Amino acid sequence: MLLAGNSIGKEFVVTSFGESHGKYVGVIVDGCPAGLPLSEKDIQAELNRRIPPQPKIVSGRIEKDTAEILSGVFNGFTTGAPIAMIVANKEANSSDYAAIKDLPRPGHADYAASVKYGDFNDYRGGGRFSGRGTVALIMAGAVAKKLLSLFDVDVLAYTTAIGNVKMSKTLSFEEIHMRRYETAVRCPDVACAEAMEDAIVNTRKEGDSLGGVIEIIALGVPAGVGEPLFDSLDADIAKMLLTIPAVKGVEFGVGFKAAELKGSENNDAYLMRDAKAATLTNNAGGILGGISSGMPIIARIAVKPTPSIAKKQQTVNLSKMEDATIEVRGRHDPCVVPKAVPAAEAAVAIALADHMIRAGFIPKVLKERK
Amino acid sequence: MLLAGNSIGKEFVVTSFGESHGKYVGVIVDGCPAGLPLSEKDIQAELNRRIPPQPKIVSGRIEKDTAEILSGVFNGFTTGAPIAMIVANKEANSSDYAAIKDLPRPGHADYAASVKYGDFNDYRGGGRFSGRGTVALIMAGAVAKKLLSLFDVDVLAYTTAIGNVKMSKTLSFEEIHMRRYETAVRCPDVACAEAMEDAIVNTRKEGDSLGGVIEIIALGVPAGVGEPLFDSLDADIAKMLLTIPAVKGVEFGVGFKAAELKGSENNDAYLMRDAKAATLTNNAGGILGGISSGMPIIARIAVKPTPSIAKKQQTVNLSKMEDATIEVRGRHDPCVVPKAVPAAEAAVAIALADHMIRAGFIPKVLKERK
Amino acid sequence: MLLAGNSIGKEFVVTSFGESHGKYVGVIVDGCPAGLPLSEKDIQAELNRRIPPQPKIVSGRIEKDTAEILSGVFNGFTTGAPIAMIVANKEANSSDYAAIKDLPRPGHADYAASVKYGDFNDYRGGGRFSGRGTVALIMAGAVAKKLLSLFDVDVLAYTTAIGNVKMSKTLSFEEIHMRRYETAVRCPDVACAEAMEDAIVNTRKEGDSLGGVIEIIALGVPAGVGEPLFDSLDADIAKMLLTIPAVKGVEFGVGFKAAELKGSENNDAYLMRDAKAATLTNNAGGILGGISSGMPIIARIAVKPTPSIAKKQQTVNLSKMEDATIEVRGRHDPCVVPKAVPAAEAAVAIALADHMIRAGFIPKVLKERK
Amino acid sequence: MLLAGNSIGKEFVVTSFGESHGKYVGVIVDGCPAGLPLSEKDIQAELNRRIPPQPKIVSGRIEKDTAEILSGVFNGFTTGAPIAMIVANKEANSSDYAAIKDLPRPGHADYAASVKYGDFNDYRGGGRFSGRGTVALIMAGAVAKKLLSLFDVDVLAYTTAIGNVKMSKTLSFEEIHMRRYETAVRCPDVACAEAMEDAIVNTRKEGDSLGGVIEIIALGVPAGVGEPLFDSLDADIAKMLLTIPAVKGVEFGVGFKAAELKGSENNDAYLMRDAKAATLTNNAGGILGGISSGMPIIARIAVKPTPSIAKKQQTVNLSKMEDATIEVRGRHDPCVVPKAVPAAEAAVAIALADHMIRAGFIPKVLKERK
Repeated sequence: MLLAGNSIGKEFVVTSFGESHGKYVGVIVDGCPAGLPLSEKDIQAELNRRIPPQPKIVSGRIEKDTAEILSGVFNGFTTGAPIAMIVANKEANSSDYAAIKDLPRPGHADYAASVKYGDFNDYRGGGRFSGRGTVALIMAGAVAKKLLSLFDVDVLAYTTAIGNVKMSKTLSFEEIHMRRYETAVRCPDVACAEAMEDAIVNTRKEGDSLGGVIEIIALGVPAGVGEPLFDSLDADIAKMLLTIPAVKGVEFGVGFKAAELKGSENNDAYLMRDAKAATLTNNAGGILGGISSGMPIIARIAVKPTPSIAKKQQTVNLSKMEDATIEVRGRHDPCVVPKAVPAAEAAVAIALADHMIRAGFIPKVLKERK
Repeated sequence: MLLAGNSIGKEFVVTSFGESHGKYVGVIVDGCPAGLPLSEKDIQAELNRRIPPQPKIVSGRIEKDTAEILSGVFNGFTTGAPIAMIVANKEANSSDYAAIKDLPRPGHADYAASVKYGDFNDYRGGGRFSGRGTVALIMAGAVAKKLLSLFDVDVLAYTTAIGNVKMSKTLSFEEIHMRRYETAVRCPDVACAEAMEDAIVNTRKEGDSLGGVIEIIALGVPAGVGEPLFDSLDADIAKMLLTIPAVKGVEFGVGFKAAELKGSENNDAYLMRDAKAATLTNNAGGILGGISSGMPIIARIAVKPTPSIAKKQQTVNLSKMEDATIEVRGRHDPCVVPKAVPAAEAAVAIALADHMIRAGFIPKVLKERK
Repeated sequence: MLLAGNSIGKEFVVTSFGESHGKYVGVIVDGCPAGLPLSEKDIQAELNRRIPPQPKIVSGRIEKDTAEILSGVFNGFTTGAPIAMIVANKEANSSDYAAIKDLPRPGHADYAASVKYGDFNDYRGGGRFSGRGTVALIMAGAVAKKLLSLFDVDVLAYTTAIGNVKMSKTLSFEEIHMRRYETAVRCPDVACAEAMEDAIVNTRKEGDSLGGVIEIIALGVPAGVGEPLFDSLDADIAKMLLTIPAVKGVEFGVGFKAAELKGSENNDAYLMRDAKAATLTNNAGGILGGISSGMPIIARIAVKPTPSIAKKQQTVNLSKMEDATIEVRGRHDPCVVPKAVPAAEAAVAIALADHMIRAGFIPKVLKERK
Repeated sequence: MLLAGNSIGKEFVVTSFGESHGKYVGVIVDGCPAGLPLSEKDIQAELNRRIPPQPKIVSGRIEKDTAEILSGVFNGFTTGAPIAMIVANKEANSSDYAAIKDLPRPGHADYAASVKYGDFNDYRGGGRFSGRGTVALIMAGAVAKKLLSLFDVDVLAYTTAIGNVKMSKTLSFEEIHMRRYETAVRCPDVACAEAMEDAIVNTRKEGDSLGGVIEIIALGVPAGVGEPLFDSLDADIAKMLLTIPAVKGVEFGVGFKAAELKGSENNDAYLMRDAKAATLTNNAGGILGGISSGMPIIARIAVKPTPSIAKKQQTVNLSKMEDATIEVRGRHDPCVVPKAVPAAEAAVAIALADHMIRAGFIPKVLKERK
């Protein structure tokens, strides 16, 4: 019954720490190859993507998060030593959360955490369970993305649905790359993005919240990445994605629809393209037998609606052991999907960096030595 | 570029070995508490569930798999030492697979594996990537299930869809427990099971194959199991499930449908029941913030249609580097869903055994010492 | 070829970061049970033991190290979440070390590190290889010692030899506990300590350095701690101790002398004492078959003389690829044994905390929940 | 309180199983690169070195151990998949050990194991704690040695002392390589070996036993192997060596003698040799800062005298809780040093294979792909 499990990865190892209302959230990346050019600006750029600029669809808590690198970088390059990074928590307002201790919020981790850690749980703002933990994920992901970019791997996430508003247009990878962070909801289809925003604004007025779907695409991953059996690439990507709060499902390629197809419909036929084997379709989402096939990796996650809502809900009073009601106050996002988009990119980038080092595609010292 | 990653778990550690057409498949369970009554009969009983009795829906390769325990059991009880178990491969017929080396089968791991391991890959029958590897998983799962049963945890999987035939009836947990292995397709709704069987038989006749959906339910898991952040219970269950060949998606509770609900619809309201907090609904599938809530754990997986089909398919010849066609011969299941049902139970049981030991719900020596 | 391996432990997991002349050195303890009373004072108290008060036997670099806790503590108790701790590096004077890049100092890691990390190595002050890394070890050890103290385990280290000056007096555990930090050389035999100090002072005058021997005693460890086969208690204690810079050997109980004894001389006879099995002698040093026997655990380490000496030494110029000479400047301790004493206590305390949690002697939540 | 910890290594991972008097002892090597030529003969050759041919200095239990490879080898080459290997236990005679259950043998793990595992401990012949476990170690070591040999690394162990008989002659590495297995005591100095044998024979006649010292040399290890901080090469070699039963100390280079030297005496001066930096002396034993320096790696272990002796010893009766005496019967080696020599080679070879893969010196597929 302890909060272990705060590290993930075998070669590119990420260790997260910090609570929503503690002094800092931070992360250590151990195993990043020596020789990667890295500065606080690289980290900050990804961090800035976490907060959509339009205040009407996000929480009142606007963090001016500033990334600081504590170790592992010398003369502008990584040294191979652990890279520790922190962000100070400035905007924490713990008074809003005093009630949580006794009244678990439906849909939150409050009750499960109180059973697990008893009186010692840091319940303020959800503590370790807060979406604020994605700050650490995104900082580690920024290192992973910088590293992958040297090997021509690009990780893109974008919103494909908010509640019942679903994106139907098919955009090119380039369009997705260019426009995904241009809209507040992180949907590269501008018209659809407006409808999504409206849905969020309207739902917020009702004191309610929305979820959605995010698609993640990894371009440029060579064939041969992934370690069978238990460390297959899809299993490790799914594990990373499910550590993002509010994610309730993960699928690859056509995903759950594969269950309805026949083999002849679902199989991706091979053909020679530029003297390499490729597939005509990509129903598999770029992974076969847990190993990358060289095609784009495609995953989708389901994000549930924010559990913190203003509407009155039924709960229990844990100290009095009786039924109770709760109206969750505090500043909450009516929809966490936009904030989850850079977190999803970070999660997949971390898994890919780890596996590309493991499979030998990324060396442990990046440049030739003198 | 090596086949590492053959171990999983932190307290209850499973290491798998063996190839489809090698001498043995086997598994080691390290970390099973001392004092569990265990015999080869326990292992054999689970293994027997892998092969549905009706030959018309399964592959021509019927393995009379016999489990042997090599170590870790003394006087009928586990000692705390590693439990090694093997099954000999008797029915392997490698001649069918000679063609795979050059002609990767669409939808299979053949191409990705050939890139990764080159000439050294054991391609016979898919080698390490074969569904035969679930024999090892099921043996380890048999130990996990026996262990969990002492703590009143029951893990049930059953087929809810084969292709477009979907089970609509709602059965009680008890009915599912009793009847899931009574039908060849492992669907406890007998009428629906017949329609599923027919669909498989008809699709086989076309030289094609089907996939489906399996639901897994874990009853009796206490609140407080799961280690935030990266080792959350849902993340670890999903990782285990995705190591079963052909699984393309995992979801918990209402899963992808949560993306369409509002917070007020998706949140599970708390109420006091038998002096404990419970929830009215279970949209969360028994896991919040990566920790069990005390409600039944519900997961679903999408299983793709068997990639090996008799129909002619387009592929490439890797030695000639040119387009080619393939008709996959050999004995193949027209639908692997039934075989995946006990594998899914094993996967979830292993994850739960690991996490219940980690969280302190299962002690490391099971009985009082004299 | 990367600086991975910065984490150790399976339940009580320590991750170290920071360089000698970087901004911070720090450490994360993950897996510390919830409910341990902990404050920055606890950490500071151990940190203060690192610097003997007498300037004549230590380096000119006197760090006023101040420990800061960044996460994992709430209302004065650990929460079960990762505990991150840092110390700012204030006194770093990198100019002294410019020469190291080309001229590896004999007895230092400079050459091996330059081969491993090439141009990216942070060579300033030895970078990751500096004895300054023991600051991180001691902070993590402070948490471990506080935790062990609740279970009546006491870890004591003290100097038994400096160069050829060896302690011959036998002191009680209580005397060692009380007096070990009273002398600058951390030897509880005051008369011997004076001779040791003189030896250091005299050797320093010659521009030379000394090593020594440290004995570590762990009192109160119950029988049954340690996991055969590869995680045996002595193997894990030895691994921890060998990560302290300058340690060249580890032995348990009578250690290397056991090789000269007969079985009848070396075996520790059992006898009943207070209704428990104890041994008449403790040649085994409290560990048999990798598991604690309930007797005091006794280990000894050999610490080599500080490699940084003022005397002229023969080396090579790595950029010119020719023979060269070096006189190492900078502020160096003529003997690192006194600073290694609290580091040795920390190393053993960390290994014991990890193993006592693993073996179930320390629960994961320390107090009963309300 | 469980027998976890049966796996070691990060890239070249060894998992051991089996008990002294169970059906099999075995081992899995996971992470061996694909493309290593390997057959049962390679394993058998190392296994044969475990039993000295002269019956007068070994136990009456002469195992005709036959190695069988269960998986991971195809067409004479490793595939990258886990390599499982077993040896059947034929000569086990459990009746000799019935008494152990109540009367712990002094110097053995019996008492500590009975506290840890209670009634479930497999006490027959020491169970998991028996020296028979080195069969598994040696099989895994055979794979490691074959792999290292392709990279011109040679691991040599030999006996330097039995009791008070110490080898004083200095032999060349080549002589040690050639002659170490020519004498029953595994000492390459033939005259000294005879004196050692006599000492063993005489001590056996007294019903007593002897220990000794083994030196291990690894030739050809390039500079740059080892991962600071916690996975330093010496720390990991020491951990492996201490898992061999009866080892009570480990030292590197001049080892404990370093504590008595001055810095100017202990430092190894650099000089250019064949356009590479080398050292004039090798007091460091080939490791600095936890990383190999390119010089031969030198370690020494102290092996205690066999605890099983015919002489009457004082013990306790654990069921009656009273003092007792014991005369250990059964077939025991009067000195385990000769059997520990190939085990020490295996231990160091495994650590080196793991670290050379980690550091990138050994690729994960050994030959070019077609």
